[in-house]
Amino acid sequence: MALLAPRAGHARVVGLTGSPGVGKSTSTSALVAAYRRRGMRVGVLAIDPSSPFSGGALLGDRVRMQEHATDEGVFIRSMASRGHLGGLSWATPQALRVLSAAGCDVVLVETVGVGQAEVEVASLADTTLVLLAPGMGDGIQAAKAGILEVADVFVVNKSDRDGADTVVRDLRYMLSLGDRRTDDGWRVPIVKTVASKGEGAAEVVDEIEKHGEWLASSGRLAERREKRAADEVEAIALTSLRVDLRSNGALQGLASRVVAGEIDPYAAADELVASLDA
Amino acid sequence: MALLAPRAGHARVVGLTGSPGVGKSTSTSALVAAYRRRGMRVGVLAIDPSSPFSGGALLGDRVRMQEHATDEGVFIRSMASRGHLGGLSWATPQALRVLSAAGCDVVLVETVGVGQAEVEVASLADTTLVLLAPGMGDGIQAAKAGILEVADVFVVNKSDRDGADTVVRDLRYMLSLGDRRTDDGWRVPIVKTVASKGEGAAEVVDEIEKHGEWLASSGRLAERREKRAADEVEAIALTSLRVDLRSNGALQGLASRVVAGEIDPYAAADELVASLDA
Repeated sequence: MALLAPRAGHARVVGLTGSPGVGKSTSTSALVAAYRRRGMRVGVLAIDPSSPFSGGALLGDRVRMQEHATDEGVFIRSMASRGHLGGLSWATPQALRVLSAAGCDVVLVETVGVGQAEVEVASLADTTLVLLAPGMGDGIQAAKAGILEVADVFVVNKSDRDGADTVVRDLRYMLSLGDRRTDDGWRVPIVKTVASKGEGAAEVVDEIEKHGEWLASSGRLAERREKRAADEVEAIALTSLRVDLRSNGALQGLASRVVAGEIDPYAAADELVASLDA
Repeated sequence: MALLAPRAGHARVVGLTGSPGVGKSTSTSALVAAYRRRGMRVGVLAIDPSSPFSGGALLGDRVRMQEHATDEGVFIRSMASRGHLGGLSWATPQALRVLSAAGCDVVLVETVGVGQAEVEVASLADTTLVLLAPGMGDGIQAAKAGILEVADVFVVNKSDRDGADTVVRDLRYMLSLGDRRTDDGWRVPIVKTVASKGEGAAEVVDEIEKHGEWLASSGRLAERREKRAADEVEAIALTSLRVDLRSNGALQGLASRVVAGEIDPYAAADELVASLDA
């Protein structure tokens, strides 16, 4: 990591999230093709936060990415994040640093939008795409799950199906109500795609580029990257402190006193922390 | 918490977990009735680790528990754990301590067995019940999900349905292959129930009591409670250290140096921890 440090931070990090069934892998594949046509080197991290036992699903994603398998300008990696401390935030920054140092111009981080995962992806990415599709009740779900808060670009995939225009209209209405992003000066675009045919992928890349220019000119890019680095340094420090706490000789005795009712766990924790400093 | 400390640790903590649809709430309700017939005071913590938006499901559980609503010897509380640091392990021990100090003889901690939740419940409980039901492919799932590792008592609910004997036979076979618990001297029993009719609930309580006697006589109870107290003290200490890290003036400067490629995040974390001690 010390050797990588000077070479890290080159790649644009693009998060891509959405509910199961909106076509995330197909969209990622279409975006990879669009970036390759512009001569850019692309890394893909497909992250499954839902289960440690997901070899099948990840393999399925790889099959969908197969058209890029022999392209030396494309690197694809599947990762299971479940069970790691802090989910995505622990292993992913390291993988991003390696891919950046290896010369990727852009890294697509794809994850299913369940629970906290989309928020974590957004915290890692320079630009976050939120995918929706017609017929999934996503318009309302978006508002509920806080997806409006994290999206820099909305992608309405499967837009050749009935209901696509309704999804676009619902999104536009919700965006018009005003949120963090509109306040900070970035107008969140909505792009219609048919990823299975590659339709709209170039337009999505255009919007990602525009967002990148806005991030740079507004000073937000530096701000986001500093926040991200601070989060990562904190997570690593916390892990190392956890190891110190576990190996601390005082813990066992304090636990016994808690069981005996001689001390409450909060006072015991204070003693434990104090013994670290000593 | 300091006032509660001397009064904590009285209640037996019984974990109850299983896949959606096996009849957890109905089984909890039947167990409450069985304990009440023995004159014991019962606390119930129903924990939903799957979503912060689960008012509906929790309310449903409460409806199923309604027969105990006016019984002063029963306390029922629903909790959502998602998003809390460490899931169950953060809020639940505090609730257990309060219920124990308030005079509960037994506290049933009910949670759906998805992901890490059943492992977390087992780490909090003196005795862990794993519920299965016929026709859910649970026999095979049990082996996969590591449920064999956490179960002190297996309950095959809905045992008036076809396939109950197959579930029992599959479990017996898997238990015969040997695991941690058989090695430590406790023979994991399998009890058939029809919770909706209260059938088998008394037998389950008998097995919980037997397990409790075994825990006490083998020295395992003290061991489990010390482990649990140590985990809790560690979690509280870690939270307080996290606050210290966040408020540490050095973090921002270190993050900037990471972004600039002057230092890698591991070296930065070492510096951050060192500045805490100073």
